[in-house]
Amino acid sequence: MRPLRIGLLGHGTVGGAFERLLSERAERVEQLTGRRPEIVGVLTRTGGDFAEILERSDLIVELIGGVDDALDYVRRALEADRDVVTANKQLLSRHGEELWQLARERERSLGFEAAVAGVVPVIRVLRESLAGTRIERIHGIVNGTTNFILSEMARTSCSYETALAEAQRLGYAESNPADDVGGADAAAKMAILARLAFDARVHIDDVRYEGIEQITAGDIAYARDFGLALKLIGTAERTRDGISVRVHPAFLYAGHPLASVGGSFNAVTVESEAITEITMSGPGAGGTQTASAVLGDVIAAVSAAGGARPMPAATAVPIIEDAVSAFYLHMEVADRPGVLAQIAQRLGEQGASIKSVIQRGLGENAQLVMVIHPLLESRLRTAIEAIGGLDFIRSQPRKIRVIDEEFE
Amino acid sequence: MRPLRIGLLGHGTVGGAFERLLSERAERVEQLTGRRPEIVGVLTRTGGDFAEILERSDLIVELIGGVDDALDYVRRALEADRDVVTANKQLLSRHGEELWQLARERERSLGFEAAVAGVVPVIRVLRESLAGTRIERIHGIVNGTTNFILSEMARTSCSYETALAEAQRLGYAESNPADDVGGADAAAKMAILARLAFDARVHIDDVRYEGIEQITAGDIAYARDFGLALKLIGTAERTRDGISVRVHPAFLYAGHPLASVGGSFNAVTVESEAITEITMSGPGAGGTQTASAVLGDVIAAVSAAGGARPMPAATAVPIIEDAVSAFYLHMEVADRPGVLAQIAQRLGEQGASIKSVIQRGLGENAQLVMVIHPLLESRLRTAIEAIGGLDFIRSQPRKIRVIDEEFE
Repeated sequence: MRPLRIGLLGHGTVGGAFERLLSERAERVEQLTGRRPEIVGVLTRTGGDFAEILERSDLIVELIGGVDDALDYVRRALEADRDVVTANKQLLSRHGEELWQLARERERSLGFEAAVAGVVPVIRVLRESLAGTRIERIHGIVNGTTNFILSEMARTSCSYETALAEAQRLGYAESNPADDVGGADAAAKMAILARLAFDARVHIDDVRYEGIEQITAGDIAYARDFGLALKLIGTAERTRDGISVRVHPAFLYAGHPLASVGGSFNAVTVESEAITEITMSGPGAGGTQTASAVLGDVIAAVSAAGGARPMPAATAVPIIEDAVSAFYLHMEVADRPGVLAQIAQRLGEQGASIKSVIQRGLGENAQLVMVIHPLLESRLRTAIEAIGGLDFIRSQPRKIRVIDEEFE
Repeated sequence: MRPLRIGLLGHGTVGGAFERLLSERAERVEQLTGRRPEIVGVLTRTGGDFAEILERSDLIVELIGGVDDALDYVRRALEADRDVVTANKQLLSRHGEELWQLARERERSLGFEAAVAGVVPVIRVLRESLAGTRIERIHGIVNGTTNFILSEMARTSCSYETALAEAQRLGYAESNPADDVGGADAAAKMAILARLAFDARVHIDDVRYEGIEQITAGDIAYARDFGLALKLIGTAERTRDGISVRVHPAFLYAGHPLASVGGSFNAVTVESEAITEITMSGPGAGGTQTASAVLGDVIAAVSAAGGARPMPAATAVPIIEDAVSAFYLHMEVADRPGVLAQIAQRLGEQGASIKSVIQRGLGENAQLVMVIHPLLESRLRTAIEAIGGLDFIRSQPRKIRVIDEEFE
């Protein structure tokens, strides 16, 4: 049978690892697909000609990153009736609908397992295993850099800055880590997962996100007292009026399946009435891991069965900004009689009720930490504004979401 | 488009749940596959005619269980060019090769996600996502009954008998639990996973298994002292000379991804050089969960893409009986001078070296518990025979395997 001619766009860490893996596993790919894979051209930022590579290829693997050029290449590849595999989350979280529609029209595969959680097969499981299931909610640790930093802070009680420096030293964080630690990377991935879970049009701009830059060693120490672990969590869920997609630091109770996911690992939990919940975890990044996910998509695209099922068309669903959550609340107060009563009153006016309180320190330097039962975030924000105006409050109260077993 | 006519064999817990789920999700199935599903006939042990149901069906869902009748039905369905979905692990662990070959020849789908770990998508991930990956080892908790019992013993320090009674009361164990607690159920599932992971012919008779009936509250208490969790673990791994597939109780170090899988959940960890490891977990049984897995296979069989990729043909690979493992060793001894030295000598003669020792009790009623560094099981067995003949040994030493981070 004729060979499987692959055009490779990008030759960085993942591109290089893919080329090596493909050569190691060429025989296996041939056994599974009946076609021997070969790379017929490589496009880098400095060399190669896309039109020429496209002409000679059956399938394009896009690992060049960025948005504009990648969009142009993937679009042209599909228009030329080539299958495409990409690991580009930014591209799909911005232009996914156009590309998925194009793939449907052209009846080509557009594989993107490697775009979210690396080799953890969350894309395939959502697209195929759970295709018939009504999914209610996804929680994910989808950024390995932030999970490494938070795990390190928990393990050594060090500061955010120290843990970030360690992550950079070990290659888990880039020298400019803003996209990772600020939550934008996780937001792009959650947009894609929400699109898959709910067949809803979700653009990265629909995802509210916060990063971990403001997390202190103190927050993590308090979390331990409450029996909680702190993670950067992406959430996509159905609400009464639409769907909510967001990324933020969150405290998890110790029994939550994501609470024990340490180091740079990724993990995703999918909840549905019919299945209860399933969790998948594994290394979220790394050259060979991501390359393995790409190779899985390449095999699927050309396997005898005729490639991946097309993405169903998306519907427009309202994106809800204001979600219900439990919260951890951290306040620095001057400890005088009546402090707790006044805070509780402001909370109560917004319907917020206190689950537990810890006080540390005395006199003018006391710290008050609470866990608040679930309520709409907007209402807590109003309460915090009112509390911030009280004369014994020494700095703006800080809130962090809590994902608690008894609340879910 | 014409409807998707389903013939349903079996109407027990899973069959009933499948019928309900299919009716609830009919619209979704139609949206994904273009065909509206309908059940055109139900075969039970007391009613219905298979030939007639087959004649009217496009796809057969086999949930009737047992081996001989099920084999006849699945064979006839494939021979009549029908797609088949089955949840029957006993059938596949005995007659899988014949049926997979038949499906290949007839170019029909034979889906069996529900046969292993219920809705945890381990079959699809092995067949598709990891198709290009050279898998080195699988560890799985693939029986929910035993995991519930062991979790309950760890949680409450109760006896095996008490935990089994509780599992029966809650519906996690059958009134005759022999297949579950004895390990045969897990062995059938591991045979299927090993077949998938290694493309090797594995029959259930190739799987060595032990159950959990001999586990005592004392074993679990000791495990805690060593920082270990006790689980019934299925293992399938490449060895130098072939593959080894086995099921036995095993102690896991606290950081192992399977150590925190509690209750009746199932979980599977797949290890490979390229991917490090990925872990999937979720409810392993239950009517709706298993029915969800069946529905996923039904959708895959008729989706636009043309159904699941056929199983590659299996090769004959030597099945290795004698595997290397670390061990926990429990001995009841009369505590006299020189006891430890004599035991250590018998171990040393077989190349077994001691990692750690705990002694409890004094005088004639002492208990000696050790963890032994990895060695071939046959050599440890020889050492245990020698130790059993020493005059201060008061009962036959007992061994349990240990899966330890530093050993792997």
